[in-house]
Amino acid sequence: MGKGMLSVCGEKQQVVLLFLIEIILIVLIGTLTTYGPEANANLLKNLKEDYNGNNEHNRKPQSDSLRIYPNVHVMIWIGFGYLMTFLKRYGQSAIGLTFLISAVLVQVALICEGVLHFDKNNKAYLSLSSLLSADVAVAAPLISMGALLGKTTYMQLVFMGIVELIVYTINKYINEHHLMAVDAGDSMYVHAFGAYFGLAVSFVFGRKDKPKEHHLEGPSYQSDIFAMIGTVFLWLFWPSFNSASLDGDSQQRAIINTLLSISGSCVIAFATSALISKDNKFNMVHVQNSTLAGGVAIGTAAGMMCKPIGALIIGSLAGLLSVLGYKYLTPFIQKRLRIHDTCGVHNLHGMPGVLAGIFGAIMAALATQNSYDYSLYEIFPARAPNFEKLTSEMRNDYGILPGNDRTALEQAGYQILALTVTLLMASISGVITGLILRTSVCGSVAEEDKFDDAVHWELEEEEEEEGLHEISKIKERNSRANDQLPMGTI
Amino acid sequence: MGKGMLSVCGEKQQVVLLFLIEIILIVLIGTLTTYGPEANANLLKNLKEDYNGNNEHNRKPQSDSLRIYPNVHVMIWIGFGYLMTFLKRYGQSAIGLTFLISAVLVQVALICEGVLHFDKNNKAYLSLSSLLSADVAVAAPLISMGALLGKTTYMQLVFMGIVELIVYTINKYINEHHLMAVDAGDSMYVHAFGAYFGLAVSFVFGRKDKPKEHHLEGPSYQSDIFAMIGTVFLWLFWPSFNSASLDGDSQQRAIINTLLSISGSCVIAFATSALISKDNKFNMVHVQNSTLAGGVAIGTAAGMMCKPIGALIIGSLAGLLSVLGYKYLTPFIQKRLRIHDTCGVHNLHGMPGVLAGIFGAIMAALATQNSYDYSLYEIFPARAPNFEKLTSEMRNDYGILPGNDRTALEQAGYQILALTVTLLMASISGVITGLILRTSVCGSVAEEDKFDDAVHWELEEEEEEEGLHEISKIKERNSRANDQLPMGTI
Amino acid sequence: MGKGMLSVCGEKQQVVLLFLIEIILIVLIGTLTTYGPEANANLLKNLKEDYNGNNEHNRKPQSDSLRIYPNVHVMIWIGFGYLMTFLKRYGQSAIGLTFLISAVLVQVALICEGVLHFDKNNKAYLSLSSLLSADVAVAAPLISMGALLGKTTYMQLVFMGIVELIVYTINKYINEHHLMAVDAGDSMYVHAFGAYFGLAVSFVFGRKDKPKEHHLEGPSYQSDIFAMIGTVFLWLFWPSFNSASLDGDSQQRAIINTLLSISGSCVIAFATSALISKDNKFNMVHVQNSTLAGGVAIGTAAGMMCKPIGALIIGSLAGLLSVLGYKYLTPFIQKRLRIHDTCGVHNLHGMPGVLAGIFGAIMAALATQNSYDYSLYEIFPARAPNFEKLTSEMRNDYGILPGNDRTALEQAGYQILALTVTLLMASISGVITGLILRTSVCGSVAEEDKFDDAVHWELEEEEEEEGLHEISKIKERNSRANDQLPMGTI
Repeated sequence: MGKGMLSVCGEKQQVVLLFLIEIILIVLIGTLTTYGPEANANLLKNLKEDYNGNNEHNRKPQSDSLRIYPNVHVMIWIGFGYLMTFLKRYGQSAIGLTFLISAVLVQVALICEGVLHFDKNNKAYLSLSSLLSADVAVAAPLISMGALLGKTTYMQLVFMGIVELIVYTINKYINEHHLMAVDAGDSMYVHAFGAYFGLAVSFVFGRKDKPKEHHLEGPSYQSDIFAMIGTVFLWLFWPSFNSASLDGDSQQRAIINTLLSISGSCVIAFATSALISKDNKFNMVHVQNSTLAGGVAIGTAAGMMCKPIGALIIGSLAGLLSVLGYKYLTPFIQKRLRIHDTCGVHNLHGMPGVLAGIFGAIMAALATQNSYDYSLYEIFPARAPNFEKLTSEMRNDYGILPGNDRTALEQAGYQILALTVTLLMASISGVITGLILRTSVCGSVAEEDKFDDAVHWELEEEEEEEGLHEISKIKERNSRANDQLPMGTI
Repeated sequence: MGKGMLSVCGEKQQVVLLFLIEIILIVLIGTLTTYGPEANANLLKNLKEDYNGNNEHNRKPQSDSLRIYPNVHVMIWIGFGYLMTFLKRYGQSAIGLTFLISAVLVQVALICEGVLHFDKNNKAYLSLSSLLSADVAVAAPLISMGALLGKTTYMQLVFMGIVELIVYTINKYINEHHLMAVDAGDSMYVHAFGAYFGLAVSFVFGRKDKPKEHHLEGPSYQSDIFAMIGTVFLWLFWPSFNSASLDGDSQQRAIINTLLSISGSCVIAFATSALISKDNKFNMVHVQNSTLAGGVAIGTAAGMMCKPIGALIIGSLAGLLSVLGYKYLTPFIQKRLRIHDTCGVHNLHGMPGVLAGIFGAIMAALATQNSYDYSLYEIFPARAPNFEKLTSEMRNDYGILPGNDRTALEQAGYQILALTVTLLMASISGVITGLILRTSVCGSVAEEDKFDDAVHWELEEEEEEEGLHEISKIKERNSRANDQLPMGTI
Repeated sequence: MGKGMLSVCGEKQQVVLLFLIEIILIVLIGTLTTYGPEANANLLKNLKEDYNGNNEHNRKPQSDSLRIYPNVHVMIWIGFGYLMTFLKRYGQSAIGLTFLISAVLVQVALICEGVLHFDKNNKAYLSLSSLLSADVAVAAPLISMGALLGKTTYMQLVFMGIVELIVYTINKYINEHHLMAVDAGDSMYVHAFGAYFGLAVSFVFGRKDKPKEHHLEGPSYQSDIFAMIGTVFLWLFWPSFNSASLDGDSQQRAIINTLLSISGSCVIAFATSALISKDNKFNMVHVQNSTLAGGVAIGTAAGMMCKPIGALIIGSLAGLLSVLGYKYLTPFIQKRLRIHDTCGVHNLHGMPGVLAGIFGAIMAALATQNSYDYSLYEIFPARAPNFEKLTSEMRNDYGILPGNDRTALEQAGYQILALTVTLLMASISGVITGLILRTSVCGSVAEEDKFDDAVHWELEEEEEEEGLHEISKIKERNSRANDQLPMGTI
């Protein structure tokens, strides 16, 4: 305790910066946003519907967002927060910084999201669905944080998150609106993006300071059980995450596909963990992370007709790949590329995210009107006939809008293009962000203070420590006794 | 261990009393309540609707209560329960007593609630919405419990809770039905009421025994991480709490406002905590509590058109106020007023609750038909035109009932009146309850047993303790060795 | 550490078996299941409804499954998982193995469930409601796991679970479809079945190795707080579990009844725990388990008109019975019948499950058309008039199908018969399963390795252990010092 704590420079400036950021957010949200129509008291329509609904026991059903939102909310704050508490002396920072970062970034995400969807008065509508989108967006910087856990100041994370969300928004917009690529569960736009962005930052950090072994970089018995709270809540609600942007039969399919995929990855991650470890025992790192890889891997294709067996196979594959990644790839990239990845986000979000993109492209290549009927054009809007070819039946009875007349293979090509764009955007912007972070505008953490809650928190002296203190005092006295003994006996 | 455990007098009587209370509750619920119409098998209408709904794939949507109820349920039991586990040796009592107290009090709340809404047969209807109201009511005594945590027997808490719920019900009824004050998120009726009631009890306790420093009144590294489970779940589901009594656009607005406000308080609480502490580090007490203050502060106005910027500002203000309260006010009122406040409920529920009441009054003063249209009369029913002035359009198309023709300023005045009434009711009834509790009918906890789970729980001897025991044995032997040494060497 | 770890034979084979099981599951799910109509993109109807719904702001309400599913999901993985973390050195296995076992078994349950409901193409439909049923089914083997916690390999649990789910499915099918017995909350089919199946397995284990005291079979201070996470989440969402298979007024009634019953059991479990323990303190084992007994005990009758007082009384009785079971019955059956029951599932699921069955039969005997009107035939379909007697009004307006014309007493008889069949099926199949498990095809755990995470997990050397290690080194050196002393002093 106490030693080296002050090596973090500029704490006071960081605090002032944090106040400043919140003030800027207040001004921006104040000037740029307004209640969406569904949340506006000044729309007589709402009142009328409420009344007639209530009156005739025939109330307007709540939107799906209202139901899925709490689950995704739990994933972001409890899921990511507790998942990262696995380090023995960094649990308070894991849960505390996730809390702080997410509270800042959810506001940033609302602004980013809003700017893309200005109404005619240059105001962005706030609604349950924009809140849900913001929650999903926040997942990306939290994933990047996983790669950097224990090695940054909170202000570095805040700064990184703000930059990342801006690039995230642009990347998602290009891929969704220009390339018209499909990614229901955001496996490319959130998971792969977040992972490679974070790894790129870590890569830049590694150029300066080669990653070293650190005595605090490991779990304790209790911290592993805390981390499982995060794992299990993420695992449970992943079907909500992957189906959040869908509705109707697509939503139900996404829930079923995700459950199957993530169950497959859970079982195969356990099995692979035991297969490759000494004495065939399970490894907590694998169980905490790789069990979730199936949720990522099915994300892009979650709403597609990939069949139950397709979901199970891709999930199982992801579980296998993820554990092997922890065992063989992570040490390799740390040693050779000097990329240190505290939580192993490359294995949970990076590779499974890429896998998801590829699987999504394959499913897109296989999608025929035979197996989807007109829903094909709901799921892949770019495949819909163009304006001339669109029949009035498709338009009027099924609400299909004119598309780009793409073939299955063309759509698959655009899916792969979206994956490539995402990986490039993430890596390049990550490297640039890393270079800025290295300038220590946002402070930095000294080697000896890494993975230590004492950097961020006023910690109480503790009994256990007193216990160990006691021991060392005894040892000391003891050794003096031993030292004296010979003298005494002489 | 072992010493002084028996200083709690009358454990046997407390147990008997607990049985007795449950028996009385069974009799009262048995005689006073019945299933509400929506839960009654004996209403043919339900069966018919079920059938026709199921038949035509056009099922009746579930009521909002069915969706919000589980979230509020989690807040009460997990949220409050784990939030209070921050003490190093009182975690089992924190979560265990919250569990017990809430299970008793939810039944009491159902009765209190029911008595106000008797049907023509003098029966109170049980329904999902009465269950939800009961959950909300239980929050008040749990907040009071926060002020007294570690210093009472369980029976003192049960007794206090029963009295408090009765006064709570009366206070809420007067303010809602006679003063027609609005408090969507119950920031006045639950938070301010619960806090000042608990502080009043603590004030009476402090007259008898001056609050002293206690070696167990502090966290451990692990207990702080447990407490964060409570904090984060409360934070996540607070939008549900504040929107529980609303529907339609008001509900959506309450969700948006609460998310913004509580995000603001989270960021500002972190920043303020770092600003005022040594070395600009975060303090776990602030992070666990003050981050939530925005949820309280927006409560009264949650459904109003306070604009996104209004929500953010009031939340940020609450976060600031709450941390400053912990730092400067709590020590002051403990020293000068002898009011000991274990969890600092004054900073999380008391001041932010008052702030919410004032903010609600300001918003009410600013509310015009221009910004709300006819919804103004849905949100502030007392502002609706009286019977003569009410147009048939308002009545028939929008379901507006005749009101009191109040002006905006009049409504604001009534809001302040409701706040004042609430604070008075809480303080006075709290003092009286405290005086009764001091008579030790419900037992009492001796100074040396405070904040110690051993008062309530059969604790196992533990390894760690064995470890420490071991240490002391070694020390003893060692010191004997040291004692003998000189003799040996002489 | 390290000693005796290798006494578990065939770890490698277990891993291979786990891979094999997942591959078989993939093949079976691949060949036997398909998306249900609601999740099928190839049904134009879905698209049309989506469009028209979305178009006119009159969207199809989500099915209840979509709302209840997440709650039951939390109960299975977080609830059961953390409930079993109470052992001081088996927490990682408790939460980790629950995770693994459930992920395997939810797939098995989907297949079992599906095989019973093949469509005309010999395909089972996957839907939200089949996912929900699978979650409920998984509870049965998790309950059995509670009886065996700490004494088996993971493969023994997987194997047991697969066999158990097959018998579970057959038992439930016979009782529901042939005996037409009602068990809304599955208290007989899941709780009683799971408990007696597990106890039967434990009985067989006890024939071979008499249950002995084990130094690791106890909680630590922290593990008890972890376990409460499970308890409280189970307690909170139990109303969802009991109402999962119901809708309309039955569902609301089930929620109300379950809340009352489980509140009663909570209070009475606390009171009884204090009554029978030394110094009238609470016991964590009772609080973690017996507080939930009311949820089980009301299960069968949850949807019936058992009145609020009925729900409270049966819940309170269950709480009382459960605590007395822990205190007096568990030691007895361990000593006399050599049935070791790690979590005391007999007290939480076994006896309360039987109580639920009996209470359900009594309620069935008391059910008259007077108190239920035509809903009687919705709740007890076998009591509906037969084809000749059924009026066209009942058929057309209320959707009542022809039944077996049973009287109230006949229905009660069938309820008791279903309970008896369930207990017999569970016990007999449990004994057979136990005999197979004893053959050590799935490995076995040696006496000294029981209740020890080191059997399943690669554990890191820990600080604490280092601490204790330190102590023993000091002791050693110290004792040498002491040994030398006399020599020195001579």
